[in-house]
Amino acid sequence: MPASPPRRLHLNAFLMNAGHHDAAWRHPATTPERVTDPAYFVELARTAERGLLDSVFLADGLALWGNVRHNALGGFEPLTLLAALATATRRIGLIATVSTTFNEPYSTARAFASLDHLSGGRAGWNIVTSGSVDEARNFGRDEHLEHGLRYERAREFVDVAVKLWDSWDDDAIVLHRAAGIYADTDRVRPIDHRGEHFRVRGPLNVPRSPQGHPLLAQAGSSEDGREFAARHAEAVFTAQQTLSDAQAFAKDLRSRLARYGRTEDQVRILPGICPVIGSTEAEARALEQELTDLQVPEYGLAQLSGMLGTDLTGLPLDGPLPELPDERDINGNRSRFTLVAELARRDGLTLRELIARLGGGRGHRVVAGTPEQIADELQEWFTAGAADGFNIMPPYLPGGLDHFVDQVVPVLQARGLFRTEYTGRTLRDHYGLARPAGRRGAHA
Amino acid sequence: MPASPPRRLHLNAFLMNAGHHDAAWRHPATTPERVTDPAYFVELARTAERGLLDSVFLADGLALWGNVRHNALGGFEPLTLLAALATATRRIGLIATVSTTFNEPYSTARAFASLDHLSGGRAGWNIVTSGSVDEARNFGRDEHLEHGLRYERAREFVDVAVKLWDSWDDDAIVLHRAAGIYADTDRVRPIDHRGEHFRVRGPLNVPRSPQGHPLLAQAGSSEDGREFAARHAEAVFTAQQTLSDAQAFAKDLRSRLARYGRTEDQVRILPGICPVIGSTEAEARALEQELTDLQVPEYGLAQLSGMLGTDLTGLPLDGPLPELPDERDINGNRSRFTLVAELARRDGLTLRELIARLGGGRGHRVVAGTPEQIADELQEWFTAGAADGFNIMPPYLPGGLDHFVDQVVPVLQARGLFRTEYTGRTLRDHYGLARPAGRRGAHA
Repeated sequence: MPASPPRRLHLNAFLMNAGHHDAAWRHPATTPERVTDPAYFVELARTAERGLLDSVFLADGLALWGNVRHNALGGFEPLTLLAALATATRRIGLIATVSTTFNEPYSTARAFASLDHLSGGRAGWNIVTSGSVDEARNFGRDEHLEHGLRYERAREFVDVAVKLWDSWDDDAIVLHRAAGIYADTDRVRPIDHRGEHFRVRGPLNVPRSPQGHPLLAQAGSSEDGREFAARHAEAVFTAQQTLSDAQAFAKDLRSRLARYGRTEDQVRILPGICPVIGSTEAEARALEQELTDLQVPEYGLAQLSGMLGTDLTGLPLDGPLPELPDERDINGNRSRFTLVAELARRDGLTLRELIARLGGGRGHRVVAGTPEQIADELQEWFTAGAADGFNIMPPYLPGGLDHFVDQVVPVLQARGLFRTEYTGRTLRDHYGLARPAGRRGAHA
Repeated sequence: MPASPPRRLHLNAFLMNAGHHDAAWRHPATTPERVTDPAYFVELARTAERGLLDSVFLADGLALWGNVRHNALGGFEPLTLLAALATATRRIGLIATVSTTFNEPYSTARAFASLDHLSGGRAGWNIVTSGSVDEARNFGRDEHLEHGLRYERAREFVDVAVKLWDSWDDDAIVLHRAAGIYADTDRVRPIDHRGEHFRVRGPLNVPRSPQGHPLLAQAGSSEDGREFAARHAEAVFTAQQTLSDAQAFAKDLRSRLARYGRTEDQVRILPGICPVIGSTEAEARALEQELTDLQVPEYGLAQLSGMLGTDLTGLPLDGPLPELPDERDINGNRSRFTLVAELARRDGLTLRELIARLGGGRGHRVVAGTPEQIADELQEWFTAGAADGFNIMPPYLPGGLDHFVDQVVPVLQARGLFRTEYTGRTLRDHYGLARPAGRRGAHA
């Protein structure tokens, strides 16, 4: 029996404007004037591809995400941007966030099928239920849909999308010119879905795409979010501050898979990490401090108010946090609320210190150090069962991604932890995930 | 006073699968196996750009458009495909159909703003209200919204989109790094729209795009459609069978502009034409006959049933049309119903003959001839006030577009009727349309 190949980690580059640090746009190494320049994102995606990363990822919200007075917000819609990147790259996966709360499954299933064809099988969908009342107000609602109801809708939404992707068999197009038969209509079928939230007849008007289904990613870590991830997600983005928290999360999520008939090798857990890289540890810490010094406190306070569901304006920055609501009363991102509240309590942080701690990763772990130190950290989490890979969130761009690709990736490769060439063509290939069989396959 | 530049015509390439003729996919010169290959569309768009055409255009529907058993239906979603084409082309405009009936204005406004940034100002939106019950059934409805109500919703939809595009002033991003001010929030404002169909708070989460607004195109030619076009459209696609009908349509549409404070130079009327090109007239007619001979009668009959709102299955192909409903009872594409019914009546066509006449252009004018004869026809309509340009619908692809670009365009150029180089950068530049001022401009 041949030895099984060594387990290797997976890396996703999470791209965001001038970088993930909320003061990145003020740093002299960034180019915030380029956040609506497609060439800027082409360069970033090509850098990630040069580093043989599994994928790039664009998060999304359906409203401005904070106060644009103090941060470089506003930019491309992710599906159109990724479609443009599809023709400018060859191998790297392309993952976009799309909300199940403010879209229709027919349109979303179709857009991802189209992106999958455009990219030759490199599309991924990060499924979100959207967390903010600002988004609801752009879609005719005064208040946001309740947390549990959002997840109910999301489950049915994804079920419909899956049926639509499978509404064409892989071999539906027969192309018999002489007989005048283009498709075998026994292999292109309506889905006739009639559920609580959606009625969709189908079939999709896009043939089955190279991956069958796009890779399904998910980032909610609340109780509802974990259950949803266990049912549907193939890649799970998560914010974890400590190794033990990350281990507990991974263990919990994996324990939920069996009830959906799924196994651990069908899911990749990817904690976020914001790597602040220096040629010495002191240099990395100085860069981190430089970014902290550029933070605009009003901006950080407003972001923190949103995360904590509590208006903090006017409170003294050097004082402690006020009394916080119960997690059950949070209708936005519940797991992020809990993480931030716990972080402040555990380390006894003032508001100013908490804003500094959240500046780089909005709750994701920030690690400052040399390329070797960053690699050590990734290796530790990976070997300790806390992660199958990482969602890399460079604090500033493009430099932070360049340094990761040019300095950290070679260390991981030298240790045998990361690929030295792409061996597959599709995003599923990169993540080591099987191609779904489709209805015909399922019934055969 | 300098002489005003000569009036020149505008040309849009309407791209569709293997070509516009419903039997194109069966013709040996086409490659229907490439309709989900992005490189195929890149080649087509680059051909149109080589011909200095104003734009390429992708129509759309939110269901399969006919019986996929007998035609190469199903393919890319247009916004993602055009975003991919944006990075593969440099100058040509990119126009996509998006429905106001099955989308939300925030998402649609945002996608077009994003495409406009991605393409450096080359985005255009063909606004449709969607005409089929098959589409309604993919979006939770058993029946289609009534014709007049669809147009009411469309008017408000576009009003909201315009407000969102103008929710950022052109100079909103001030980028004062030292002061920590990214955008002047007096210049990024909520729109607070509260109407009959939509409540949208805004602002958009995309800065104002190169064109301010994408170019707005529209193709409805019914009473409701003409009034909508008079109010909003900057390019009007229309199906007209005869010069006198086209003249009457153009005159009628232009006469409606004043009540919206608009003038003739703000609208380009572009009748569709399916040019069947041969090196002799006999060769062109032979190609037309070859395509007709490849038609699948069941397919043509089903398409005709849809256009006429009348089930024609089982009727003898060599007999006349049955009694037809009144235009007022048609809830789909009303103007197309009237055009087809009139064509059959005027020329006394059997069902088979009508299917043959509609095969190439689905009601758009088909002209078979030499490049000079095609150019004569375009020139006659252009100089007689029936058209500001044309929507070119090649019967088969890629050859039909190659021939138009390589053989007809040079004739038009030699006659001084068409540009010999691109003089502008944006789609609005190509069509000679002004950039909208935005709110700040409007209030200055």
